[in-house]
Amino acid sequence: MYAPGDVRVEDRTDPQIREATDAIIRLSATCVCGSDLWPYRGADPIDRPSPMGHEYAGIVEEVGSEVRNVRPGQFVVGSFFASDNTCDICRAGYQSSCIHRVGIGGEGAQAERMRVPLADGTLVATPEVPHADLVPSFLAASDVLGTGWFGAVAAEAGPGKIVAVVGDGAVGLLAVLAAQQLGAERIIAMSRHQDRQKLAMDYGATDIVTERGDEGVARVKDLTNGLGAHSVIEAVGTQESMMQAIRATRPGGHVGYVGVAHDVALPGEELFFSHVHLHGGPAPVRRFLPDLMDRIWNGRIDPGKVFDLELPLDQAAEGYRAMDSRQAIKVLLRP
Amino acid sequence: MYAPGDVRVEDRTDPQIREATDAIIRLSATCVCGSDLWPYRGADPIDRPSPMGHEYAGIVEEVGSEVRNVRPGQFVVGSFFASDNTCDICRAGYQSSCIHRVGIGGEGAQAERMRVPLADGTLVATPEVPHADLVPSFLAASDVLGTGWFGAVAAEAGPGKIVAVVGDGAVGLLAVLAAQQLGAERIIAMSRHQDRQKLAMDYGATDIVTERGDEGVARVKDLTNGLGAHSVIEAVGTQESMMQAIRATRPGGHVGYVGVAHDVALPGEELFFSHVHLHGGPAPVRRFLPDLMDRIWNGRIDPGKVFDLELPLDQAAEGYRAMDSRQAIKVLLRP
Repeated sequence: MYAPGDVRVEDRTDPQIREATDAIIRLSATCVCGSDLWPYRGADPIDRPSPMGHEYAGIVEEVGSEVRNVRPGQFVVGSFFASDNTCDICRAGYQSSCIHRVGIGGEGAQAERMRVPLADGTLVATPEVPHADLVPSFLAASDVLGTGWFGAVAAEAGPGKIVAVVGDGAVGLLAVLAAQQLGAERIIAMSRHQDRQKLAMDYGATDIVTERGDEGVARVKDLTNGLGAHSVIEAVGTQESMMQAIRATRPGGHVGYVGVAHDVALPGEELFFSHVHLHGGPAPVRRFLPDLMDRIWNGRIDPGKVFDLELPLDQAAEGYRAMDSRQAIKVLLRP
Repeated sequence: MYAPGDVRVEDRTDPQIREATDAIIRLSATCVCGSDLWPYRGADPIDRPSPMGHEYAGIVEEVGSEVRNVRPGQFVVGSFFASDNTCDICRAGYQSSCIHRVGIGGEGAQAERMRVPLADGTLVATPEVPHADLVPSFLAASDVLGTGWFGAVAAEAGPGKIVAVVGDGAVGLLAVLAAQQLGAERIIAMSRHQDRQKLAMDYGATDIVTERGDEGVARVKDLTNGLGAHSVIEAVGTQESMMQAIRATRPGGHVGYVGVAHDVALPGEELFFSHVHLHGGPAPVRRFLPDLMDRIWNGRIDPGKVFDLELPLDQAAEGYRAMDSRQAIKVLLRP
């Protein structure tokens, strides 16, 4: 990305093993993330032309001398933060805050090949190379599925719980799927777009609320005996969506927030008296990857359905345009 | 309280049963709360002269016709919010957000007698009228102990956890006691005052940090292998103390905040990347009362030690002055 709205596909030098813990993978698929739209729209600064992309699934081509857990030829998925998976923070399940974490964004996953640091702690392999049909779902596990799943776990979605989801992008839709898989009793998807409502229902939503802001909150209260939902997943990251999530949650309930916060300031007094639990942040996708990849391998979930547009990598700029204009929920790019 | 700094003790009409669910109690002891200092210092508005006090322990004198759980002659403790203890929110353990909650502040517990609404859901009786020595501890259970306890529970203090406490008022000190009772491995009390440090050590603190703000955070990190505490209890309610608590918590750790928030705005992006859990608010003291009263009755805890000044009720104004000037940690008033 050279500037807001200016995405170019260029030939770059092939990535090389730099550390003994690195792996080089050949991407089977990559994609454009909702968070890539922040700089695309000028909301995040762009200091210089930057490689883009942090979602990846592909075949290991080469590994550094210290890599033990993956080997060339394996199909692997990793997360947007490389992690050692051994430090105290990783062992507590917060690999995206690993004390040695490395952001994958700098490597640029919207590419044919990429270097993955800390390969042993980052990559998870499938039992065999999967059928091409499953590749979009494995790619989804790299970020949007893992992020939606973390939102649902942070919101303590589960049996007996009424769950509401704020945001109908890929993360919000997969948070619906996560809540369903975690056994939620009822799932309220907040969406104004028919195609997204339909996918939400496919993924297990039981109710659709089209209103936003305080009206949306009032509708959720109408549906919950005036109390609010037990669990609310916030998958947008704006002031409005955060307040909508907090206000739609009953006292003692849980807000799981996974939309990257932009210009958000939470009013202390309202938060205090809301009595909600608040947890979220950059999803520790690595915590969930083995379980999620197993569910995909065994056909129990189909998160790849969030990709409603597929383009060759060299048309990446068109992919950004389609997501920015909301013509596509999420765009898969084939190198 | 007539105005900031202006507290008067006056004869008022005896409280009467107004609802069939009310009880009238004669106070054995009452006290001044840290939160009473907000209006006393002019930080909260005072529209008109207001009865003060919301902490109480005493003998039931009369009950309304529908009251079943307590009877005249019993020694009882209640919380600062009356609650039905039967609604969905109460049953989830959030009695201070009960859908029928009534603030006790309006009744004025700094008095000889008071009316307690929703007596069945609010008051908890001791097996027998306790010895006078135990009265300060039972009074502490009414708010400061229950609030410190909730802070520790919200911060998930427990075995194997390193806990830090921000704030060395009565609530902070009793949060130290709560963390100790809940089995915390190590308890870091943040305090600059020698008398409070001593009480914190008596209550189970293992380390004292005298620095505040970012320096205090750095000291906590020094003590925790650079990671921060697992559990941090915030018992002040200012922007500085909230940020100190969030920054002193390791990723994936828990902040329990019980200081009533004043002019606090939490920066969304920092909170997002902090990866902490945040929970708190007005403590649902009723949830903990039976357990806390049992611990006091059996001599396992002595929370009454936070009262380091005892005055007759008619010297209430002097009690406010002593707490405002930090000459006293907490002032007990004897009607």
